[in-house]
Amino acid sequence: MSSLADFTTCELSDALVKLGLSHGGLLPDITIRSPRNGEDTRVCGPAYTVQMVWASDEAAPKLRAHFVDTAPAGSVMLIDAPPQAKNAVWGGLMTAGAKARGVLGVVISGRCRDLAEHLVAGFPVFARGQSTLGQSPFTRPSAVNVPLTISSPDTSGPHAFPAVTVEPGDWIVADMDGVVCVPTALQSKVVELAAKGREVDAKCMADIQSGRGIQETFAEHRGKPKL
Amino acid sequence: MSSLADFTTCELSDALVKLGLSHGGLLPDITIRSPRNGEDTRVCGPAYTVQMVWASDEAAPKLRAHFVDTAPAGSVMLIDAPPQAKNAVWGGLMTAGAKARGVLGVVISGRCRDLAEHLVAGFPVFARGQSTLGQSPFTRPSAVNVPLTISSPDTSGPHAFPAVTVEPGDWIVADMDGVVCVPTALQSKVVELAAKGREVDAKCMADIQSGRGIQETFAEHRGKPKL
Amino acid sequence: MSSLADFTTCELSDALVKLGLSHGGLLPDITIRSPRNGEDTRVCGPAYTVQMVWASDEAAPKLRAHFVDTAPAGSVMLIDAPPQAKNAVWGGLMTAGAKARGVLGVVISGRCRDLAEHLVAGFPVFARGQSTLGQSPFTRPSAVNVPLTISSPDTSGPHAFPAVTVEPGDWIVADMDGVVCVPTALQSKVVELAAKGREVDAKCMADIQSGRGIQETFAEHRGKPKL
Repeated sequence: MSSLADFTTCELSDALVKLGLSHGGLLPDITIRSPRNGEDTRVCGPAYTVQMVWASDEAAPKLRAHFVDTAPAGSVMLIDAPPQAKNAVWGGLMTAGAKARGVLGVVISGRCRDLAEHLVAGFPVFARGQSTLGQSPFTRPSAVNVPLTISSPDTSGPHAFPAVTVEPGDWIVADMDGVVCVPTALQSKVVELAAKGREVDAKCMADIQSGRGIQETFAEHRGKPKL
Repeated sequence: MSSLADFTTCELSDALVKLGLSHGGLLPDITIRSPRNGEDTRVCGPAYTVQMVWASDEAAPKLRAHFVDTAPAGSVMLIDAPPQAKNAVWGGLMTAGAKARGVLGVVISGRCRDLAEHLVAGFPVFARGQSTLGQSPFTRPSAVNVPLTISSPDTSGPHAFPAVTVEPGDWIVADMDGVVCVPTALQSKVVELAAKGREVDAKCMADIQSGRGIQETFAEHRGKPKL
Repeated sequence: MSSLADFTTCELSDALVKLGLSHGGLLPDITIRSPRNGEDTRVCGPAYTVQMVWASDEAAPKLRAHFVDTAPAGSVMLIDAPPQAKNAVWGGLMTAGAKARGVLGVVISGRCRDLAEHLVAGFPVFARGQSTLGQSPFTRPSAVNVPLTISSPDTSGPHAFPAVTVEPGDWIVADMDGVVCVPTALQSKVVELAAKGREVDAKCMADIQSGRGIQETFAEHRGKPKL
């Protein structure tokens, strides 16, 4: 029996697009930072969400516990930071704490620091960028286990990429190609479609590697002349 | 007898600048993605061009064959995608098809996916970014063997970097430093100037490594006090 | 007795923030390019500053000597180029000259080229981007040993990251996490605070790795409930 963890993020995006999600679950431009060579790395687990806000935002809620201390074992930490923030919202002590609690990895719509420490710890870290600055006095955690709306900073106009809202517990899958969110309700359908897609792609790959044309191959195995 | 493939992209840009091309042939900010360590990688061949358009663009022409199936052996595939597109226009099956046809590599003004597959295949891929999303329903190939105008998304104003128009058959050279287009008509002059430039640079390098000042070295070998 | 070179850029930024510098000394988004694996690389030395200007800027001062020839041994070269420039302001011959003079490394708010040469030379290069184009006819060195104001190209509005002004002789420290400037006058205080910070962090790390909560750990060793 397959599970989400068996599939690449590309296979999962293909399934989500087939199910009508116009963004295919993609959280764009968040890339692998640790481990260095990511071919064998795939993080897959339910999202434990963390909302960072500007420290100057007095109106936003405050937390009573450290956001790492309340992360469940087996979860993937997903952090959303203000897009303009130049400071890191994740560092070496956070990786140590998350690892000790059994967190599988961290995905940051924002920056990380202490890269050497994550590499030594072998802890998977995905982020938009890096920094030497910590949270204080720039940003602070405001809420955990809340929906996060991850938007792309660099698109606007008619072709703007849609923001992806991640609910706590939605599945986060991250590998070399990027980070995808699979809504809990779609999990079994996505696994089913991804397994079918893989089967079809394997047939296509065998034919194409043997020198057969892609158009002819797609027409036979995908049942339509996909250009 | 030297050929374009003997020179680095930097040497070729220097020659093109000397010939009066204000952009030095550079297609900016397209970086090597596969293989991982690119020191020994240089792709050099005539451009087979592919224009991607938004899938919603009904007015743009349509192709009758898959764009990979019509790529000539020995060519370098050059793909131009809409700058805002967050989806990949190149993946593992495309690499398999291109490799089977003897295409030398792919240069994408846009995104790729299935990175692990390109690395395993040892197929050279240069791109602006990565994604988990495929073409559909975002973009589609519209034309092959047409001129492509590659522009820099992030410049404007008086110092905007000029767009580079690549004609089918123009030479594309790509290595660790970037991607350069050499117009067919300039090929022999570029080889000649790049060979001269290399000779001068080798003399400069020997002197500089031995501790001689750069200004004095340039004055002797370049014949002008270049600061 | 500790010195700046003993500390990571993150530890130094923490100390600078504690001393009231709102930018923590960070020159954002300048990343390590050479050597390839940067875990063991830390460049630390007084800044030898170089201001590049557009070549079309006739009003800006001109240099009488090549900017590399006048770099002192033991310094870190810090170069500021116009943010929009797509050309490199540093290449293989510059690395050879700088290495021959005993320069420790180069930090470029701008682009470099000839990456393979820096890697072979084992010379540390930090930059914002890469290119195949050299200086001419795009930019030129205008002044050395002048204050440089390094600003972040992509922020504006109320949360814009402050520009960092680097005086000649200020300390530049660069590693995998980024590049930090430590003003000369703050050097001894920064070393003192960074040493204290490291001691506290080491205690925190031991506790956190043993499974203790981060909040409790911070409360004990940092003396406040830092979330």
